Amino acid sequence: MAYDDQNIFAQILAGKIPCKEVYKDEHVLAFHDIQPQAPVHVLFLPRGAYESSQDFYASASPGEITALARAVAAVAERLGVVKGGYRLISNHRHYAGQEVPHFHIHLLGGAPLGPMTSGK
Amino acid sequence: MAYDDQNIFAQILAGKIPCKEVYKDEHVLAFHDIQPQAPVHVLFLPRGAYESSQDFYASASPGEITALARAVAAVAERLGVVKGGYRLISNHRHYAGQEVPHFHIHLLGGAPLGPMTSGK
Repeated sequence: MAYDDQNIFAQILAGKIPCKEVYKDEHVLAFHDIQPQAPVHVLFLPRGAYESSQDFYASASPGEITALARAVAAVAERLGVVKGGYRLISNHRHYAGQEVPHFHIHLLGGAPLGPMTSGK
Repeated sequence: MAYDDQNIFAQILAGKIPCKEVYKDEHVLAFHDIQPQAPVHVLFLPRGAYESSQDFYASASPGEITALARAVAAVAERLGVVKGGYRLISNHRHYAGQEVPHFHIHLLGGAPLGPMTSGK
């Protein structure tokens, strides 16, 4: 499937739609989720046009992949969720309920998060 | 906290406890979860002594981080979950319910997975 460059995260990356920015560098943008599902809910996006985790993990450069990893660790530290704990989630396509076709990692923390899945 | 080299995943990595292996390379081991929470439930572990996502993403080498990413994409392809979709989850410490103190990524797929969180 071709990347949809009008998806909402593409527009945030392009500066056309505002976000509550948490972190940015050459490869990564992170911001607070507009509908948080935990006291801390941050989204991490690569700047490149990757539709999903599959595209990103299969074909992004080591530099892009490492930058995303370092950003997660740095933001977790800065937001104070390392000691209590946090969950990282990424959803690929419809079985997982991926909502925006630009790869992103959710970081959820700040309180007990409940079970890992809904039990289905 | 010092890494506990007697944890169950350390013992699997050392070959002292068997697993249903899916993938291995110099940096990564992947195997089927013994208590699957979806039709496909695979765990991906770095071979290095990283207690959690925080340790791994902050301090693993670009080679280790990239190897883990490529392994996820390769296994998702091989197990046929790319088209339908899959979810990647990692739990850091107690708010997230991390059960084994060796960093691992869960891949869940093969059927609709329900909501991303328990709604708490």
